[in-house]
Amino acid sequence: MDRLAALFSDDMREVNALILRHMESDVPLIPQVASYLIAAGGKRIRPLLTLASTRLCGDNGPRPYGLAASVEFIHSATLLHDDVVDESEKRRGQDSAPVVFGNQASVLVGDFLFSRAFQLMVADGSLEVLRILSTASAVIAEGEVMQLQTANNLETTLDEYYKVIASKTAALFAAATEIGPVIAGSDASVQAAMCDYGHHLGMAFQIADDVLDYTADQEKLGKTVGDDLREGKVTAPVIIALAKADTEERKFWTRTIVERDVREADLPCAQAILKRHNALVRGQELAQRHADAAINALNLCPAGELRDILAALPAYVIGRDH
Amino acid sequence: MDRLAALFSDDMREVNALILRHMESDVPLIPQVASYLIAAGGKRIRPLLTLASTRLCGDNGPRPYGLAASVEFIHSATLLHDDVVDESEKRRGQDSAPVVFGNQASVLVGDFLFSRAFQLMVADGSLEVLRILSTASAVIAEGEVMQLQTANNLETTLDEYYKVIASKTAALFAAATEIGPVIAGSDASVQAAMCDYGHHLGMAFQIADDVLDYTADQEKLGKTVGDDLREGKVTAPVIIALAKADTEERKFWTRTIVERDVREADLPCAQAILKRHNALVRGQELAQRHADAAINALNLCPAGELRDILAALPAYVIGRDH
Repeated sequence: MDRLAALFSDDMREVNALILRHMESDVPLIPQVASYLIAAGGKRIRPLLTLASTRLCGDNGPRPYGLAASVEFIHSATLLHDDVVDESEKRRGQDSAPVVFGNQASVLVGDFLFSRAFQLMVADGSLEVLRILSTASAVIAEGEVMQLQTANNLETTLDEYYKVIASKTAALFAAATEIGPVIAGSDASVQAAMCDYGHHLGMAFQIADDVLDYTADQEKLGKTVGDDLREGKVTAPVIIALAKADTEERKFWTRTIVERDVREADLPCAQAILKRHNALVRGQELAQRHADAAINALNLCPAGELRDILAALPAYVIGRDH
Repeated sequence: MDRLAALFSDDMREVNALILRHMESDVPLIPQVASYLIAAGGKRIRPLLTLASTRLCGDNGPRPYGLAASVEFIHSATLLHDDVVDESEKRRGQDSAPVVFGNQASVLVGDFLFSRAFQLMVADGSLEVLRILSTASAVIAEGEVMQLQTANNLETTLDEYYKVIASKTAALFAAATEIGPVIAGSDASVQAAMCDYGHHLGMAFQIADDVLDYTADQEKLGKTVGDDLREGKVTAPVIIALAKADTEERKFWTRTIVERDVREADLPCAQAILKRHNALVRGQELAQRHADAAINALNLCPAGELRDILAALPAYVIGRDH
């Protein structure tokens, strides 16, 4: 990730300038909320992926800048809406936007950023890119709604969980990497391979994130550890542990996740149960499988230094805590 | 309006079929929420405007169907988010979607419909239409945020109020009528005139709606009368009455709109104050001015029966209660 960021630091300066310019509005609250979220950082992994996939396919022009900004706007819009929906208190180590600016502003500024994302795509002018990103946006919303329905439901299967994260997370990673070859005019096979790479990278990222929610160092993660438990989200580690749960454990998961009665001592207790069933290690293994698939997908893409850097990313996203 | 709906009943059947088809999803909650809102009716004035403006400009093909559906999806998405932001309990005479399905589903299904709107535009393939509707979407979000900031603020000027409603309401009317001439390949002058028509029609519609919020027959209006007072919205009638308010009245508006301490007897009291200062009649006059401007804008558009029907719409939108 550091090599990727270093390689594209000049390009990212252009992208960041576009992000700043396009979050401007006559309505001061809009850039306030948007910059509070976007300036708070995050690693800009999605716009970096758009830059990298474009360059990998041989296009060295300015076209990916606006589209990388567009991808980051879609991501930011979903974060704002997520934090409203999840009632999250922390994001990237600081109070979440809804806590600081309220739910109303967070919903509406999310809508604004989402619209701006489409304006940036229109300015680029590729209908194929518009198709990819509008489809991804619809799929993300579907994933978020699916997640609402699997929350608090101990019957959620690993397949249902995969479908949720493929939609809510991997779809935007896949779109971010797919538009590079589109911009560069690459073959359909390369476009499909880069889409695949982004999908598996996103899956690995999200599974690892869901493991981290039970294992991470709070300060490094930047969000509150144990959020998923408190929100009643049924993620990979929980599904794995549930398959082996005894009566006592099932009672515990029912009280915390179904009935949402989560007490102070419940996080350590959940962590102990997950460890007992090796659920965190097995969760990491699931992430590793997608990391391997992402690397495999790159075989169809142009070889070279940049491909090697992209091939190192999956290991980075599943090991973010180290 | 009835003539418009009758004239385009066949076309609207196509539009409604597209609306139904595109609100489908593997995630059952999505069509549930979407159809709850969309099937509840509403007069479909915005998609009718897209149909009418296309036909007025001489295009009799199927292209406006998808775009009319797209316009209705954008409108529906903003309604879902509005009802979350305003904490509205009623919409079109029934419980609002957030009351029935919760805020979370309403935010996310709004995002889904918004994405679907862009997918429909992409399927049409006109970058100019995409430009018009993505810009309108950003402007709507700006208007909604502006409205948050003018709420509970008695210093709001009539100009600020105009800016809010031009953005949150008139922008989508203007976009709905502007894309007709774009589809039909009309001159830029006709495109500008139809955009103008939609803008003024939308302004007239919203000002009249804000007057109706204090005067309407609750059952006919389909929403709770007095919502704006309860939500602390500073609309045309209040701004007009505030300019003439004595100390007692100012105290009343401060308690209700600024401090949001609204009691049972306050709606009749507000109505009495508004009547005393002729604020409801003057509000209607402001709506009438925009109605006249809308009719004027049509002068640059092709004459005939359809233009006459469109010229009768402004009177309809400002007289909805009668």
